[in-house]
Amino acid sequence: MMPWTDTTRPLPERVEALLAEMTLDEKLAQLGSVWVGAELGSGNVAPMQEAFAEPAAFEEATAHGMGHITRPLGTSPVDPADGARRLAELQRDLIARSRLKVPAIAHEECLTGFTTYHATVFPTPLGLAATFDPEGVERMTTAIGESMCATGAHQGLSPVLDVVRDYRWGRVEETFGEDPYLVGMMGAAYVRGLESTGLVATLKHFAGYSASQAARNHAPVSMGPRTLRDVILIPFELAIREGGARSVMNSYSEIDGLPVAADAGLLTGVLRDEWGFEGTVVSDYWSIVFLLNMHQVAGTPGEAGALSLAAGIDVELPHTRCYGEPLAEAVRAGAVPEELVDRAARRVLRQKGELGLLDAGWTPTVPDGPLDIDPPEHRALAKELAERSIMLLANDGTLPLRPGQLALVGPCAADPLAFLGCYSYPNHGVMAGHPDMGLGVEVPTLLDVLGHALYAPGCDVMDDDPTMLLAAVEAASAAELCVCAVGDRPGLFGRGTSGEGCDAADLSLPGIQDELVEALIKTGTPIVLVVISGRPYALGRYEGRVAAMVQAFLPGEEGAAAVAGVLTGEVMPTGRLPVQVPRVAGAQPSTYLHPILGGNSEGVSNLDPTPLFAFGHGLSYTTFEYGEFALSAAEIATDGSVEVSCVVRNAGERAGAEVVQLYLSGPVAPVTRPVTQLAGFLRVELEAGEAARVTFTLHADRTAFTGVDLRRVVIPGEIGLALGASAADVRGRLTLQLVGEEREVGHDRVLTTPATRSPV
Amino acid sequence: MMPWTDTTRPLPERVEALLAEMTLDEKLAQLGSVWVGAELGSGNVAPMQEAFAEPAAFEEATAHGMGHITRPLGTSPVDPADGARRLAELQRDLIARSRLKVPAIAHEECLTGFTTYHATVFPTPLGLAATFDPEGVERMTTAIGESMCATGAHQGLSPVLDVVRDYRWGRVEETFGEDPYLVGMMGAAYVRGLESTGLVATLKHFAGYSASQAARNHAPVSMGPRTLRDVILIPFELAIREGGARSVMNSYSEIDGLPVAADAGLLTGVLRDEWGFEGTVVSDYWSIVFLLNMHQVAGTPGEAGALSLAAGIDVELPHTRCYGEPLAEAVRAGAVPEELVDRAARRVLRQKGELGLLDAGWTPTVPDGPLDIDPPEHRALAKELAERSIMLLANDGTLPLRPGQLALVGPCAADPLAFLGCYSYPNHGVMAGHPDMGLGVEVPTLLDVLGHALYAPGCDVMDDDPTMLLAAVEAASAAELCVCAVGDRPGLFGRGTSGEGCDAADLSLPGIQDELVEALIKTGTPIVLVVISGRPYALGRYEGRVAAMVQAFLPGEEGAAAVAGVLTGEVMPTGRLPVQVPRVAGAQPSTYLHPILGGNSEGVSNLDPTPLFAFGHGLSYTTFEYGEFALSAAEIATDGSVEVSCVVRNAGERAGAEVVQLYLSGPVAPVTRPVTQLAGFLRVELEAGEAARVTFTLHADRTAFTGVDLRRVVIPGEIGLALGASAADVRGRLTLQLVGEEREVGHDRVLTTPATRSPV
Repeated sequence: MMPWTDTTRPLPERVEALLAEMTLDEKLAQLGSVWVGAELGSGNVAPMQEAFAEPAAFEEATAHGMGHITRPLGTSPVDPADGARRLAELQRDLIARSRLKVPAIAHEECLTGFTTYHATVFPTPLGLAATFDPEGVERMTTAIGESMCATGAHQGLSPVLDVVRDYRWGRVEETFGEDPYLVGMMGAAYVRGLESTGLVATLKHFAGYSASQAARNHAPVSMGPRTLRDVILIPFELAIREGGARSVMNSYSEIDGLPVAADAGLLTGVLRDEWGFEGTVVSDYWSIVFLLNMHQVAGTPGEAGALSLAAGIDVELPHTRCYGEPLAEAVRAGAVPEELVDRAARRVLRQKGELGLLDAGWTPTVPDGPLDIDPPEHRALAKELAERSIMLLANDGTLPLRPGQLALVGPCAADPLAFLGCYSYPNHGVMAGHPDMGLGVEVPTLLDVLGHALYAPGCDVMDDDPTMLLAAVEAASAAELCVCAVGDRPGLFGRGTSGEGCDAADLSLPGIQDELVEALIKTGTPIVLVVISGRPYALGRYEGRVAAMVQAFLPGEEGAAAVAGVLTGEVMPTGRLPVQVPRVAGAQPSTYLHPILGGNSEGVSNLDPTPLFAFGHGLSYTTFEYGEFALSAAEIATDGSVEVSCVVRNAGERAGAEVVQLYLSGPVAPVTRPVTQLAGFLRVELEAGEAARVTFTLHADRTAFTGVDLRRVVIPGEIGLALGASAADVRGRLTLQLVGEEREVGHDRVLTTPATRSPV
Repeated sequence: MMPWTDTTRPLPERVEALLAEMTLDEKLAQLGSVWVGAELGSGNVAPMQEAFAEPAAFEEATAHGMGHITRPLGTSPVDPADGARRLAELQRDLIARSRLKVPAIAHEECLTGFTTYHATVFPTPLGLAATFDPEGVERMTTAIGESMCATGAHQGLSPVLDVVRDYRWGRVEETFGEDPYLVGMMGAAYVRGLESTGLVATLKHFAGYSASQAARNHAPVSMGPRTLRDVILIPFELAIREGGARSVMNSYSEIDGLPVAADAGLLTGVLRDEWGFEGTVVSDYWSIVFLLNMHQVAGTPGEAGALSLAAGIDVELPHTRCYGEPLAEAVRAGAVPEELVDRAARRVLRQKGELGLLDAGWTPTVPDGPLDIDPPEHRALAKELAERSIMLLANDGTLPLRPGQLALVGPCAADPLAFLGCYSYPNHGVMAGHPDMGLGVEVPTLLDVLGHALYAPGCDVMDDDPTMLLAAVEAASAAELCVCAVGDRPGLFGRGTSGEGCDAADLSLPGIQDELVEALIKTGTPIVLVVISGRPYALGRYEGRVAAMVQAFLPGEEGAAAVAGVLTGEVMPTGRLPVQVPRVAGAQPSTYLHPILGGNSEGVSNLDPTPLFAFGHGLSYTTFEYGEFALSAAEIATDGSVEVSCVVRNAGERAGAEVVQLYLSGPVAPVTRPVTQLAGFLRVELEAGEAARVTFTLHADRTAFTGVDLRRVVIPGEIGLALGASAADVRGRLTLQLVGEEREVGHDRVLTTPATRSPV
């Protein structure tokens, strides 16, 4: 028995024993990955593929062992059981071929579900964020993790914890929105579910990706350390501490000229030294070689590898380009200390140990029959989450729909792909090379669900051809009510209007959809505008001109049923905006989290960034009344906590759910502070007439900020607290005094605001 | 004789003697200003005036003396000689009233000329930058300074050295463009001219104002220290060292949460400790009180004053709000050390000493007759500079105009105000309250100059009323050629489409001007598009669809004649773009100075920021050929210099001028570097057939950058040099090796690249 396989010995000892046995090449092999079946050159997998050599064949790549296997089921479309068997075969092959017989970590994408053929497609994170329901997300990732584990996967490359800074960015749909606390709480829940199944969750993209210039994918980020710490890093810290994430993926970004893949201050200083993170850091795909051919801060693959290794990236994904022979040469030449290789290898091997991959007798997972990775219970969960994610933004009383002749128009009404995120398997590029194989899962459209309507698409999302407008106008004219479904066609690298590499020049609806809506409004038939999109679009022009507005952020395979349920009233709308909906198409970026001068400053600028719909906004078919606002103390020390509470009552005649939101402002500090920021939230289900007390336990640490000298502090002063139904719809205000000394707070500070409901 | 008035004693001694004599109130009085005749409340002067108390009356304000008098002639319209006499009266009154009898520094605005009634209006700085002619700017500010001095002014609140980072910003017209070296060289020339007349020049806005979120005026700036140092601060350093500026004005901005008005690191650390600046720092108008009511980093006026005083602002403008009684109370309460008051007062008194204001027998300037501040020689200079500033962007051979029936359309053709910048007196707000008093100077329009044409405005710049379109289409249809003048109506705080507080949501032409141009194109009559604007607008849609494009950046009182001269061919076009002209209206910001990922990255983002016309672009009615590219050495040390040269030949049949541009790239560094950046330029006038050798003396210091650890270094490596007619129109490339050790460089490093012409 090789000593490191002995499960009776402590893991650190086993890891050291294995490491001591390894040659330099064997250690470096653990820091790489192999991608079998990547359809490079097909235009479906990666940007600028010309820049990359074809990955080595499996046999050649694994001669010294292998750290990871890249997306074994996520690449070419495959039956899940067949895919699992193929993966098992690769692992057996790797073990047979390599001297030390260490299996690889198999990683997969899983943002909106296991990103493989036939797997359930859940709502996008932006839709999930609209549920304000972390527990639902945790159930979802538990389900996802079970499917993945059944195929032999070990690590999922999710969640995305980027905080939205510009709605034009293509990857807004992948995020949990524009508030760091909401992103962090949803992210932590996502991680808990995934990790509960034994999978390693991967936080990405650490950090700063979302704030690129003009929202162009990979464009430079202009940002100082204070914003980075107080906005961008918060969700990562939450998901590590409250979620227990075991892996982190670097951001492609350069921040103020320094590429994150070469940033030791972030990848080691913040992540490990300050936060005590002990998992692995994996590179975003090709981001190490990007140091050479994109950022150009390295002159050779070996230099790029040396920069990333020193910065703290342990594993190069998706296949070995810089960490293999180029890094070996650099170590042999004395340019890179072998200790850095050991440091990374130790982390990878420890993770393998945790995953059981070092255990004697380990055998790959082999399904003993067919695998159903879209079982009825996952589909039911996808529907439940989709229902909770739909936002009723405006309603003049037209909704719920009453019987009558309905027209259904718009390019998103009958396109199943319009309901799925870019990281769903059907939209993630591979299927474009397999046009005859279908979607792999059933995705009913709005037309399928509301089948009795007059239907016309009106136009296409992706082009400006006006020839179909007339038929849509005719359908609307002939109907008593017109439901118009507009929005995105998600896709990868310019093949869609939302998704990775699909950035928007402005926030007008893609193509000629604004023309379509204008033409429909002119018919005089009441219009219910349904926006199914991966980002908020500017809807200010429709204010007061349409009967209702419904927003769905790519709600997944059961999304059409959820939208239809909200339209008909079978489903009570309970979604709340995790991003603002802006008024106008230009004048971006602008998000709700800003100091005074980031908002409307009449007289200073003619531009007014006040949104059409505020962060947190969402209507219902019932109404909620707030009262009995209370603080358990009028003042607390700078290390104290307080209970903030109110009573919320369902004042209508139908059961519903309210998302009670707590916002804070202040104190006056030496650096500018947000006008308001989300401090806590709770989704509360209430029967008609029912009331509940909602209590938030707010710690003074939640007012911490990064000061002039970059120390994080809590300072005394006046804190404004607002309870309400959105950032703008405040129902009660309270004032809290923080007293005592300024206090520096570290990684052990309180990051969350627990919220509970109790009977009145 | 009071000892500080004795001109035989050294100035520092006199200043200390005076300071020693002063009470706290007298010292604080020197740190303030008084604004007589400010039409506060008229909506014409300041944003958010409700937030400010009316300034105190002169008598009350000057009881303890006074530091400055604010815009004595720049406020209500006044005959310049009358204004000078009124200022002299105020000075006499101040001397009579105050114990120590120290006159005030009278400051005025002077961006596009003395900002007062009847004064010459020169081109805006953006237009001046298009001349690439620092010597012309120096002559201009010498002329401006002479006019100002004749009225008793001491200080001019110019130049603006903000580097354009977002074309949507309203104040783009006030800048010298988007390249820090061009901004700095033009700024230094501006300062030299003004200071040569004895006036104190004021560099503004120090620093970071131009990079506000979504280009909204005063919105927060997200920026790290590296970009700040390598882009934003460069022009200030140049204008202090190469221009000798004696005053600096802070920026309104908050950068990464820290308002500049409270930023000791910038106002004292960089400016004084690193750069050795010994002049005064004056506050931008109300920026100290903004710490209280906008940034909210102070709770009281006294706290705001204390923050700014400690940071390094010596004088509060435009009138005393925080530095008077509130600061006196703070000093008396021990909250602010009196040494900080002394520090600021000493700087103000030293400047007064330099200006002769402390000298025995000082008497105010009183004109001995009428003052002509728009004399023929100034008007001739305004015309010369305007002519050099006009850019011929595209031309299918239609220009110069041939005889034939001409239509002249567009809202900018016949509006004199469309030719003047926001900081010209006619557009700066005050005249709006005096509608019957005219412009104060003659401003011929394009219609005046090309008077024989069929004319129709087509639309208004500021509204969307389409009723005038038809007449313009008819005029164009009836003509053989149509000149269409579109662009901006500059104004203050939302009263215009360009200028302070007039930011753009996107870069489509304001109002319905794009509709107008499209309608004109449809007539089939060849269109010469003339854009008279304060910012570049997106012209990509007109590429290849109009006969020619001419750009003028608010060319001043003789601007129409200059534009007409270029159209007819009487004036050879020689202007070059100091900013790019973008293709599309959205997807901003994007400027030419960017690392690779800030440009087109096909396959990574669907958005392509490549401009329609590159930085430095401009056509001519002749052609220039380049050759004989040479380096005096193939390699130099990291503290060496090299001569880079080429021969440029006028290959056409008319005399003209070429702006020979030198760009550099590299070396590979640990932080990302611009793909290309302007390293030198020379405007070369050449007769038909004439050739000249242009030689740049490039020092290795010009490749310096701020590294990972924020030290500024020159490192060895390969430098790419490009010589050509724009950032995109490269005619010759050379490679230079920097060899030897990495070298840290400080404020003594070489900042300029001298350029000379010599016969071939």
